[in-house]
Amino acid sequence: MKHDFYAAIRDRWRTGSYVCIGLDIDLKRLPESLDGNSATDKIYEFITRIVDATSDYACAYKLNSAHYEALGADGAVLLARSIRYSKERHPDIPVILDAKRGDIADTNEFYAAAVFDELGADAVTVHPYMGKQSLLPFLRRAEKGVIVMGANSAEGAGELQNLTLEGGEPLYRYICQRVATEWNEYENCAVTASALDPDQLAGVRSAVGDMPILLLGIGAQGGDLEASVRHGAARDDLGIIINISRAIMYASSDSDFAEAAGEKARQFNEQIAYAQKTVK
Amino acid sequence: MKHDFYAAIRDRWRTGSYVCIGLDIDLKRLPESLDGNSATDKIYEFITRIVDATSDYACAYKLNSAHYEALGADGAVLLARSIRYSKERHPDIPVILDAKRGDIADTNEFYAAAVFDELGADAVTVHPYMGKQSLLPFLRRAEKGVIVMGANSAEGAGELQNLTLEGGEPLYRYICQRVATEWNEYENCAVTASALDPDQLAGVRSAVGDMPILLLGIGAQGGDLEASVRHGAARDDLGIIINISRAIMYASSDSDFAEAAGEKARQFNEQIAYAQKTVK
Repeated sequence: MKHDFYAAIRDRWRTGSYVCIGLDIDLKRLPESLDGNSATDKIYEFITRIVDATSDYACAYKLNSAHYEALGADGAVLLARSIRYSKERHPDIPVILDAKRGDIADTNEFYAAAVFDELGADAVTVHPYMGKQSLLPFLRRAEKGVIVMGANSAEGAGELQNLTLEGGEPLYRYICQRVATEWNEYENCAVTASALDPDQLAGVRSAVGDMPILLLGIGAQGGDLEASVRHGAARDDLGIIINISRAIMYASSDSDFAEAAGEKARQFNEQIAYAQKTVK
Repeated sequence: MKHDFYAAIRDRWRTGSYVCIGLDIDLKRLPESLDGNSATDKIYEFITRIVDATSDYACAYKLNSAHYEALGADGAVLLARSIRYSKERHPDIPVILDAKRGDIADTNEFYAAAVFDELGADAVTVHPYMGKQSLLPFLRRAEKGVIVMGANSAEGAGELQNLTLEGGEPLYRYICQRVATEWNEYENCAVTASALDPDQLAGVRSAVGDMPILLLGIGAQGGDLEASVRHGAARDDLGIIINISRAIMYASSDSDFAEAAGEKARQFNEQIAYAQKTVK
């Protein structure tokens, strides 16, 4: 990439490439037709073919670290190889490591080195709990994206995030606002929100101004694309990095899985473009 | 280990082995006298010698994942080898992976597999933000310890954890109480607290009943051991897993580093035993 994470995302949006493609591999769902001697070789084949087939449509790739860590040290090699492949073949498409890291600042120096320098990711997801000071080793890397866990709609996710603060504001909204106003001094922050709760998404958007939002829940989880664009868009651009994982990765379990993934990504892009027009 | 994580910790306490030894390796601080062809071989030599020299005094070993991840795929191999060595040579001493993980439940299944099955750790640190439901893949592993980020005293850590909830309670105390009363159905939870803020530690203790607390900040950071025992102890046992990292690991930078680490661990144990007597 020639420039920073969000500039790269916006460049992709301008070319009509909207979907962020989640590469969350699952051994149980790999197509049977893959080449390779080992499980990790087969997964590498799978990922690289999905990446190549969808590169015309992707605003970003998002790899969830958990799925690779579960494969042990082989998974660490696989993760590094997969990111390297994507960056070499498709240097204009930024890569998000969805790792949800977060420790004290001294330790986050090591995490930032792992994610940005060792793995070469362009952005990372982080936990907010320990505050801005602790996240400075990530935040100071102005060219890298720092995506803070904001709102989620998974079962039970409201237990803490929806707590009401003295003053009446829900915790997640307060966090999103802090990120947008206090943590974003390098203009490299985003927060997460869920497509499954449009009201919550609207709350996040009103809290963060025009800061980008990483939107989860579209695709297999059934979030409403048009409602998401309506409630999530920023004033001057799409504003939401719309992640879709399984609906694209596992569009077909046969030998045409890559073509099917590309076609599915193309269709999502059309739907997003249409939603943008409808909403405006 | 014959039984679950906290039973193993309590067995160690009963033999007078109190310190939890943090193995947070830092390439810049390795003794020059180490054998090994590669950096990771040298670190492995360092870790295994520290482990052997301190095994009579340790209630647990705690490895911070960030320090290993920063070494890339070699670090993943090193982390697995180091845990395996400790478990094979000293099977009665539980191993904590300080990884501060936390995602939705589906993803946490992969993290639990990574930490407990691939790496063989006996306990893991996790972020509370996404609620109990999300953590069930960790919590359901009843024989494993799940240590939830509660209170911290790092610079700026109060930004979110000290927020006042509707009703007047600080967020960290509410979280600690939820962990002790709602999340602990498998009796395998703990929370973190800091030795650098005795009042906060007392608040955490009052919130969690007799649940164990992982205590950070003793050693190089200068936390007060006697005040920590006074404010942190449970009714029937020490109650605090007292982590000490740099003060033991880097007790000497010469070729006697292992002996120095063992001697330092022995001294901390004596101080803890003395503090327990003084306080009672």
